Amino acid sequence: MTIAKVHLLLTGNELMTGDIVDSNSAMIAQKCKGIGIKVSRKVTLADDLTLLSQEIKSLTRNADVLIINGGLGPTTDDLTAQALALAAESSLEQHPVALAHLESWCKQRNAHLGEANLKQAILPEGCTVIANRVGSAVGFSLTINNCQIYCTPGVPSELKIMMNEQIIPTLKSQSNFTAEMDITRLQIFGIGESTLQSLLVKEFPDWPEEVEIGFRASSPLIELKLTIEKHEHLPVKAKLIKTLKTLLNAHIIEEIIGKPRSLAELVLQLCQKKNLKITTAESCTGGLIASEITKIPGSSASFEAGFVTYSNAMKSKLLNVEENILEQYGAVSEETVIAMAQGALKVTNADLAIAVSGIAGPDGGSEDKPVGTVWIAWGTKNNMQSQHFCIKSTRTYFQHSVAARSLDLIRRLLIESTERPLYF
Amino acid sequence: MTIAKVHLLLTGNELMTGDIVDSNSAMIAQKCKGIGIKVSRKVTLADDLTLLSQEIKSLTRNADVLIINGGLGPTTDDLTAQALALAAESSLEQHPVALAHLESWCKQRNAHLGEANLKQAILPEGCTVIANRVGSAVGFSLTINNCQIYCTPGVPSELKIMMNEQIIPTLKSQSNFTAEMDITRLQIFGIGESTLQSLLVKEFPDWPEEVEIGFRASSPLIELKLTIEKHEHLPVKAKLIKTLKTLLNAHIIEEIIGKPRSLAELVLQLCQKKNLKITTAESCTGGLIASEITKIPGSSASFEAGFVTYSNAMKSKLLNVEENILEQYGAVSEETVIAMAQGALKVTNADLAIAVSGIAGPDGGSEDKPVGTVWIAWGTKNNMQSQHFCIKSTRTYFQHSVAARSLDLIRRLLIESTERPLYF
Repeated sequence: MTIAKVHLLLTGNELMTGDIVDSNSAMIAQKCKGIGIKVSRKVTLADDLTLLSQEIKSLTRNADVLIINGGLGPTTDDLTAQALALAAESSLEQHPVALAHLESWCKQRNAHLGEANLKQAILPEGCTVIANRVGSAVGFSLTINNCQIYCTPGVPSELKIMMNEQIIPTLKSQSNFTAEMDITRLQIFGIGESTLQSLLVKEFPDWPEEVEIGFRASSPLIELKLTIEKHEHLPVKAKLIKTLKTLLNAHIIEEIIGKPRSLAELVLQLCQKKNLKITTAESCTGGLIASEITKIPGSSASFEAGFVTYSNAMKSKLLNVEENILEQYGAVSEETVIAMAQGALKVTNADLAIAVSGIAGPDGGSEDKPVGTVWIAWGTKNNMQSQHFCIKSTRTYFQHSVAARSLDLIRRLLIESTERPLYF
Repeated sequence: MTIAKVHLLLTGNELMTGDIVDSNSAMIAQKCKGIGIKVSRKVTLADDLTLLSQEIKSLTRNADVLIINGGLGPTTDDLTAQALALAAESSLEQHPVALAHLESWCKQRNAHLGEANLKQAILPEGCTVIANRVGSAVGFSLTINNCQIYCTPGVPSELKIMMNEQIIPTLKSQSNFTAEMDITRLQIFGIGESTLQSLLVKEFPDWPEEVEIGFRASSPLIELKLTIEKHEHLPVKAKLIKTLKTLLNAHIIEEIIGKPRSLAELVLQLCQKKNLKITTAESCTGGLIASEITKIPGSSASFEAGFVTYSNAMKSKLLNVEENILEQYGAVSEETVIAMAQGALKVTNADLAIAVSGIAGPDGGSEDKPVGTVWIAWGTKNNMQSQHFCIKSTRTYFQHSVAARSLDLIRRLLIESTERPLYF
């Protein structure tokens, strides 16, 4: 069977009022694109039974596949199952697989399976349950008007797992995707998007048209994507990539295989490979760097402890920063961050340290050290480096940017790159 | 005239592939909502002339107003004007107002008005130009099937100005919007969405139909929204809210005025009011709680230091947790988190502490203490409380959930609530 037409139906009052921005449909479309399937129509409606059932009827008449997102929750405004039963002119019944899922879900949480949750097991007759291993709402599939329908939960993390593990493999097995398309994705950091563009225009005045180039800024990283439609163009692409790797050097974090990895993941992997322990001493980022590192499963093997030292007193007490350094140079200074990093190394016996001190704003700046000023120190006891930046932006952007740069700087140290990044 | 039905049509290949997430439609819907107009259908299509013109025909038959977004640019895949001419069975012509705009636009920038840009002056005959004071693409309006159509640019900043300055005032002048709508939003935490729903069904078997109730789960918080369409229903709503406040008590974090605040913001505000300093001692959340707190401008006044102590050795060394406690009860135990919290209080001289220790997974669980087990301690030196939870989910969800619960528990202590939350 060939899947020619895929339609999406999104449901939710909050989508119609604009109270939330829908990113689920983009995720679904991207995953379909990955297996060569294009979404050709997307309809969004409020939680209205009549509208939903009419639309399902109309969409199924024109599509091979319909993916419905949202409306699977326990509340009265979750209407997907009802709308489907109405569209299929069938009835609703308690589905044993869905019920078993809900029972075990509640049991694991020592919770009572109440009436609201029980509603999530009432599904259109004859449908097939799609398991949800991270949420209470199961998905389900059925066929109306020869169109395969997949109903998915609105919670993005649940939707993502269901797409990856179940719906996409099912669709892929049915599609005649010949996989001639070939994509190379390079993860880049340390150079701004427009600087990167100018560099490429200058270096490649005659970019070969068989290789499509795309940029995607997923702050703070940039993804550079090279796509060819036919395998015969592989050598052209390979040649381009070779030149790009020389040109961009350590700005290329890695070639992305599967899911892009974060800077913290790459740093941790390098630490594990070299059997090194890392610690953090944070002022202006307030725990964000430690949190980025400890997000990653298995981080405890390389990360034993981190410090958030906002006040001068705590910098002295916890990290042994000498009071005269703080007095003479101030909390935001090269001398202080180096002392913070050395202090953290000494107290924790780690091999590597990152220390940051800066003015995140919106208040606290001076003429000498405006909001956005930050000093970063990174390295080992005998090879401690430091650099000053001024990142003028919001508090949130500043904190994330400092965290990313400090992780990137320690990454460059670990791969023994001598090139200094631009970050612009 | 009354505007009953407003539809949106969004066009763009990049919207269908998911390469970009559409936030324009949410912006349009929010602006319409502000003048009492609901958007009832949203359709997104690729840049395909046939599909677009058919959809315009179909949407205009069922709506009073159709807002089209995208497809006004200079490139060949910008097809909105053509699709409209096709749908209206009329022709395209060079519009003098649009041409004058383009000429002055180019002149101001010392740019040549090329053929691609000239295309932006070719519009359906009889349409009215909507000025664009920040971009090259003008908008335009016309009527098909008695439906008013507004064509708007895809660039968000241009769209926003055009909506604010021209389209919304026009629609407002036509609508019978009396600004009678009144909304109350309650921020809720400590009770799951389905438990909340069951509770409401039980407490209010005859919910008054003049008050529309809506739920929005913006993990980890739930927003409960009560809307009335007419001022005469204010007393009914006020009575409901009074009962809700008694029923839900400390689960109601606050009535939202403007932008919802985070749990950390509320905790910080309470600390500032009471002149208390807070510290954190984190194992499984790895700095996330500190990071949530220090995100907030001015947090340094109430937060001087925090600890990330992953290893047992660091719990002992930095927080003075006795080794025999760790040996006897383990790192994930009531005794250990209490000792961590007391240790953090002593070292930092803070008034309040949060300490957490748990198994974030995916590995590290045992039969006795499975992945998801966590102990939280919170309080002051002389009033230290603790609680055990089991949160079975992904590592990310677990960490965010532990951070939210621990902030909520300290919030409840600060408002002297004695009720224990359910979190399910």
